[in-house]
Amino acid sequence: MKRTLVTNIGCLQTPVGSYSHKGSKQGINEKYADVEVVIEDGLIKEICASGKSSPADFDQVIDAEGKLVTPGLVDGHTHLIFGGYRQHELAMKIAGAGYLDILRAGGGILDTVRKTRDASEEELYDKSMSFLDEMLSMGITTCEVKSGYGLTKDSELKMLRVIRAMNENHKMDVVPTFMGAHAIPPEYEGRGDEYIDFLCEEVIPQVKKEGLAEFCDIFCEDAVFNAEQSRRYLQAARDAEFELKIHADEIEAIGGTELAGEMRATSAEHLIAIKESGMDAMAEGGTTAMCLPATSFYLGATYAPAKKMVEKGIPVAIASDFNPGSCPSLNLQLAINLGCLKYRLLPEEVLTAVTINPACAINRGDLVGTIEPGKQADMVIWNAPDFEMVCYRFGSNLAEKVIKKGELI
Amino acid sequence: MKRTLVTNIGCLQTPVGSYSHKGSKQGINEKYADVEVVIEDGLIKEICASGKSSPADFDQVIDAEGKLVTPGLVDGHTHLIFGGYRQHELAMKIAGAGYLDILRAGGGILDTVRKTRDASEEELYDKSMSFLDEMLSMGITTCEVKSGYGLTKDSELKMLRVIRAMNENHKMDVVPTFMGAHAIPPEYEGRGDEYIDFLCEEVIPQVKKEGLAEFCDIFCEDAVFNAEQSRRYLQAARDAEFELKIHADEIEAIGGTELAGEMRATSAEHLIAIKESGMDAMAEGGTTAMCLPATSFYLGATYAPAKKMVEKGIPVAIASDFNPGSCPSLNLQLAINLGCLKYRLLPEEVLTAVTINPACAINRGDLVGTIEPGKQADMVIWNAPDFEMVCYRFGSNLAEKVIKKGELI
Repeated sequence: MKRTLVTNIGCLQTPVGSYSHKGSKQGINEKYADVEVVIEDGLIKEICASGKSSPADFDQVIDAEGKLVTPGLVDGHTHLIFGGYRQHELAMKIAGAGYLDILRAGGGILDTVRKTRDASEEELYDKSMSFLDEMLSMGITTCEVKSGYGLTKDSELKMLRVIRAMNENHKMDVVPTFMGAHAIPPEYEGRGDEYIDFLCEEVIPQVKKEGLAEFCDIFCEDAVFNAEQSRRYLQAARDAEFELKIHADEIEAIGGTELAGEMRATSAEHLIAIKESGMDAMAEGGTTAMCLPATSFYLGATYAPAKKMVEKGIPVAIASDFNPGSCPSLNLQLAINLGCLKYRLLPEEVLTAVTINPACAINRGDLVGTIEPGKQADMVIWNAPDFEMVCYRFGSNLAEKVIKKGELI
Repeated sequence: MKRTLVTNIGCLQTPVGSYSHKGSKQGINEKYADVEVVIEDGLIKEICASGKSSPADFDQVIDAEGKLVTPGLVDGHTHLIFGGYRQHELAMKIAGAGYLDILRAGGGILDTVRKTRDASEEELYDKSMSFLDEMLSMGITTCEVKSGYGLTKDSELKMLRVIRAMNENHKMDVVPTFMGAHAIPPEYEGRGDEYIDFLCEEVIPQVKKEGLAEFCDIFCEDAVFNAEQSRRYLQAARDAEFELKIHADEIEAIGGTELAGEMRATSAEHLIAIKESGMDAMAEGGTTAMCLPATSFYLGATYAPAKKMVEKGIPVAIASDFNPGSCPSLNLQLAINLGCLKYRLLPEEVLTAVTINPACAINRGDLVGTIEPGKQADMVIWNAPDFEMVCYRFGSNLAEKVIKKGELI
């Protein structure tokens, strides 16, 4: 048995309780001053007063130097596997190009689809692994990754195999989501129903057969997939024993969040345009609100009503949404800042939103997301005395040391 | 003579021309593909086609691996020497505390003044040097630093001595600005005129005598110093042979930018509320607009009309404004992103705004801010193929290698 002691912790701040799928404890944090954490074989054994343990009894001692320790961050929504980048679209937009100009110039999501189809599995793997390295260095110890830039059976399976390989070979825990219904591929232009049929009949079963995903996700939005198509897709996913996610109410509320609540989806994503009825349905269905503030920031859009959703008892998570189109940032610390500055969530609510709530929303709530005995020892030692400092000092990576399964990264 | 070759540059992008104090060339960049740069004794000797030079003729060869190279970034406006932090004010504000609540709780700028007065010179030096380390790692090779959290003769001189020591001992070039007129100190409450007298008669001459600053700056704003007080202070500064800066039109336009133009101040800062008459005066006076977008971001304020100022022919610079109250970020790359996303400046305009324009605005235009023969060899090799990528990929530090005076940091 390998025993590790994290000693000299000035402030340990963590949400508490392994949250159920339904029922939010947003912002209920424990704060312990002057404690140490005992780790055995990568699991948290005990939180005790500083000086209780004898360092000589441990194989490894990690000195927190009197600083803040929190659970490792959980990024519950990313699209981090993609071919190419789309930096030229930003300059085009500033210079006055409209949506159609960019499409005509070969831009937009279908540009990423083309480049992702063209990329080899190895290329995608190498690029994505380097993103995981950077995320880990910023304190993220668990993340979700979606497919959805292939939009053919083979290229979607290719993306999912990349996720599997990443999870096997990287220290980060990576949770896979199948999102074949991310856009209508050019081959199915004007035939969204047929594309949904294809996904339900041919791709979802294959993904299941190969054990390549835990969740299925769909982009329910005007001009992409409507609520009825979303229902059909999610039902097929449920029938195949996947759990459900849905991109809903990002631009227009066309019934996605009501559907999410009704079908008891694990999470609904974006929610910028969510209406009262959608919030009520999500609260009733125990659906986590996966809020993506850095996307609002990058697009100059409004921000999801995260504070109101907290007040409604909906578990609110904050994720990066890292993707090459609407949010080319993998920095979850910046999303933390935005959670305070734009959502007006309190630091303790934000901490909940980047640890236990997303952990539950990607089926890892029993394993990570809090610092409690029995949980995996994923922790961050911050170059900060308290979590308020992390919320305030934007633009710097304040994660000083990252501990994954009891090992210092 | 030490000779260095920076080889294998995929794209070298730089503003051109040593700008005069008056007359903007905003956004006029040269782009060279496949070049190398010859450096002799820390100065740029030549930009030539790749492969022209023989690596064996050089003492040091730096491989840019086909990536983007730009001039080192110049941060033309910081308040990076300060005691303490003010992270608890953010949480208080989110929880509903107003300006007066925070003041009553001992917060606001006078909290920083108290802690800066209490800090020893060594404490301030150590803290500030670590900021410079981080800034340099993000591609900033020259910066300005202001005093202004002491507000007594001794504590202002202490801050300026810290700046001098930083400049002597850090690789960063640091340009000092005296800003005794940053706020009215508690000892002078309600007696702003007397405080200005004190600064003009006792402190400015002493700063000059000890050679501790190149610029004098004042916060011209309703409830701080009015335009007449600002004029008096700046005239005293000019009489003592300082160059002039002025914080103007941040919240209300009370004549600060008109004064800046009339007095031909080197730069005016903030400019969120600037009116047409202020812009006209600045254009006429050759005053650089020092825009601080990360402060607008953090405060949730509107953004200065940077695009309009560019159109008026005012040289526009973008700086971090790093300070513990209104902008606790030292990340100039984030200000670059905001320059595109919020000011709607083109990437080439933003590059000008973080290199040659701030260099001119802190009297270093002949030395740094472009990659041209004769200039100091301050350069950044970016983990990016083009500057558009730097503008687009927010949240990551894309500065891969930083070269200061020809040496790899």
